[in-house]
Amino acid sequence: MKPIKVGLLGIGTVGSGTFNVLKRNQEEIMRRAGRAIEITMVADLNVERARELTNGECEIVNDANLVVNHPDIDIVIELIGGYGIAKDLVLKAIANGKHVVTANKALLATHGNEIFKAAQDKGVMVAFEAAVAGGIPIIKALREGLTANRIEWIAGIINGTTNFILSEMRDKGIDFATALKDAQALGYAEADPTFDIEGVDAAHKATIMASIAFGIPMQFNKAHVEGITKLEAIDIRYAEQLGYRIKLLGITKRSDKGVELRVHPTLIPEKRLIANVEGAMNAVLVQGDAVGATLYYGKGAGAEPTASAVIADLVDITRLATADPEHRVPHLAFQPNSLSDLVILPMSEIVTSYYLRLHVADKAGVLADVTKILAESSISIDAMLQKEPAEGEQRTDIVMLTHQTQEKNILAAIAQIEALSSVFGSVTKLRLEELS
Amino acid sequence: MKPIKVGLLGIGTVGSGTFNVLKRNQEEIMRRAGRAIEITMVADLNVERARELTNGECEIVNDANLVVNHPDIDIVIELIGGYGIAKDLVLKAIANGKHVVTANKALLATHGNEIFKAAQDKGVMVAFEAAVAGGIPIIKALREGLTANRIEWIAGIINGTTNFILSEMRDKGIDFATALKDAQALGYAEADPTFDIEGVDAAHKATIMASIAFGIPMQFNKAHVEGITKLEAIDIRYAEQLGYRIKLLGITKRSDKGVELRVHPTLIPEKRLIANVEGAMNAVLVQGDAVGATLYYGKGAGAEPTASAVIADLVDITRLATADPEHRVPHLAFQPNSLSDLVILPMSEIVTSYYLRLHVADKAGVLADVTKILAESSISIDAMLQKEPAEGEQRTDIVMLTHQTQEKNILAAIAQIEALSSVFGSVTKLRLEELS
Repeated sequence: MKPIKVGLLGIGTVGSGTFNVLKRNQEEIMRRAGRAIEITMVADLNVERARELTNGECEIVNDANLVVNHPDIDIVIELIGGYGIAKDLVLKAIANGKHVVTANKALLATHGNEIFKAAQDKGVMVAFEAAVAGGIPIIKALREGLTANRIEWIAGIINGTTNFILSEMRDKGIDFATALKDAQALGYAEADPTFDIEGVDAAHKATIMASIAFGIPMQFNKAHVEGITKLEAIDIRYAEQLGYRIKLLGITKRSDKGVELRVHPTLIPEKRLIANVEGAMNAVLVQGDAVGATLYYGKGAGAEPTASAVIADLVDITRLATADPEHRVPHLAFQPNSLSDLVILPMSEIVTSYYLRLHVADKAGVLADVTKILAESSISIDAMLQKEPAEGEQRTDIVMLTHQTQEKNILAAIAQIEALSSVFGSVTKLRLEELS
Repeated sequence: MKPIKVGLLGIGTVGSGTFNVLKRNQEEIMRRAGRAIEITMVADLNVERARELTNGECEIVNDANLVVNHPDIDIVIELIGGYGIAKDLVLKAIANGKHVVTANKALLATHGNEIFKAAQDKGVMVAFEAAVAGGIPIIKALREGLTANRIEWIAGIINGTTNFILSEMRDKGIDFATALKDAQALGYAEADPTFDIEGVDAAHKATIMASIAFGIPMQFNKAHVEGITKLEAIDIRYAEQLGYRIKLLGITKRSDKGVELRVHPTLIPEKRLIANVEGAMNAVLVQGDAVGATLYYGKGAGAEPTASAVIADLVDITRLATADPEHRVPHLAFQPNSLSDLVILPMSEIVTSYYLRLHVADKAGVLADVTKILAESSISIDAMLQKEPAEGEQRTDIVMLTHQTQEKNILAAIAQIEALSSVFGSVTKLRLEELS
């Protein structure tokens, strides 16, 4: 059969990785796909650089419209990023009957519903393995590998930058600002790291996973997004003394009332495998009712790991292109007419355990006052750490781990605790997941 | 569309798990697959029990031929096991144009080439996710998720029974026989545990993974199969002192000369995630040239975890049944006409690192004699542990870790070492993989 012709939009890090891997492994990929897969056109504003990167082996244009409108192109790879021009181009490619592969989590988490609807109407595929956890085939696992299951929850380390920073903070006992600078110097954080450190990137990915796990539309605007910028080194230390690690997790969980969708720093027991995922690595833990817990681990970013996912999507499309569009793997794992209207729960309604750190006067009765408030709120204490005050200090830290309670319940209790005259400043609150 | 009709051969543990999960999650599975999937016929010798387990909801027969020959059946699930009748029935189902789902690793590892050829000729699918690592979607990851990669090696904990026994031996400092008895009492080992503890089950699974990773025919008869029955508690302890855990790994590795395919107890650095996979859990580590290392972890056995994989295959077939048989996902990940003739290397040719334990006379010069032999064989030492002799003893243990060398090289050196008068008994040799 004749080769599958691919047009590439944007030849930056992942784009050149994709070009290189596809070329290096072309013989093996063809043996798998049954057809050659060739990037024949590349659109990039930097035409000169694109020409160098591709050794003059494909047509280079600076107008991406020429690619999405080209009659010979079977699949368009969108690696431009963002919601603006990328969205237009993806929709144009679909309208022109081309399959699309994209690594653009921001685009899918915010405009995915519109894009998948358009693709459904045209009978083309939009594949996005590279949008979540880089080279780890987690989309495929959720959408195809675990289809027997009622998925109960997912918890993932899905942002390498923040995991690197957290690993450094713990390893070296340094604060966030220092660890961020180290990460930038080593290339693990961008010059403007906002999307990573504020949890936005992880929330995009969690939104996509929630959608394919539970069969709900993409609802990024309902996600709770909390990064690691306010995390203090002392809480990492206290957590460790209690047998926990702090990770930035993307969590989505189904309950009778709806779906929790949240990204925040989270204490997890150090004995869990996922607690030991260090540096820039990613891992996703999935709980299904039949299979139990499964974990997927690997590199979540970088040129070739991400290219690995992009090319897997190209091969998938090549293999499945002849299947009846009505029955082949649905974009969101569930048939488009069977999506659920389960609501995304507001944060006040979520249920989890908590880590609380209080700065208190070192005198009798303080602990009694605090535990009384918690008891009256029906919040039970799982573990506690009370530090001796430092030499000459009259104040000390109390650290508590609670059992599960509703977020609004703990917030009300914290407000009461903060009103105590023997408690100074605000209470530090982190969420805790046993992941068992 | 009308439901997909499934015939089940054998309703034991996995069969009843499959029936139950399919029923419990039928609404969600139908939303994913786009069609209802129903087990309408069950063949089992114990008709009475089959009738109870299925609540009279399907036709029960005691002759499996009635299922594979029934015109209404679209997919046959083979859960009989073994190579005898199971093979005949699978081939008959294929000949009758039915798709097949099987968890039978023994059958595929030994007769897979014939079965896949027959399926190819008839244009039907034979799916076998449940044959390796139970509920972990590792077949899908290798066959579809990592298609961009030149896979370099795979190392897996793919037998839960032996991993449970090894975990117990390390945790409790007990010997193999005691740990086996515990495993049997707890239901983690069968009354006749031979296939598990001798490594045969793991070798079947490694054979299947080698085939789909490297695009080679199934060649179980070329696999090196070594179990854990001879493993001594003392070696687990010494390994731990050196920073290693001992796991029964299924390993397959590609080199220029061919493919290594071997199952044996293996030292791995304790800091690797896979070294911390305990109890009956499974995990598979895959090294690809583009993606780097990815790890897949979960339950490798049990009714519902295995059912999870069986049903995922049913959904896959339902989704892909309309695709052109020539181009949809090939059984062995590579197109049948593009399989490679890479040879399976004999054990003497494999290259790895080694753990050696010598029982020696506690006197000057012994170590010099031993290290001289190793140096003359160009085997370099990575780490060493020399124990003081116990009170009143004249003999002691020397433990050495070597750098990489060829198996035949270490065997020749060991023969020389054993010939030394100051070395008593035989040298204990274990293989070591850094997995980095």
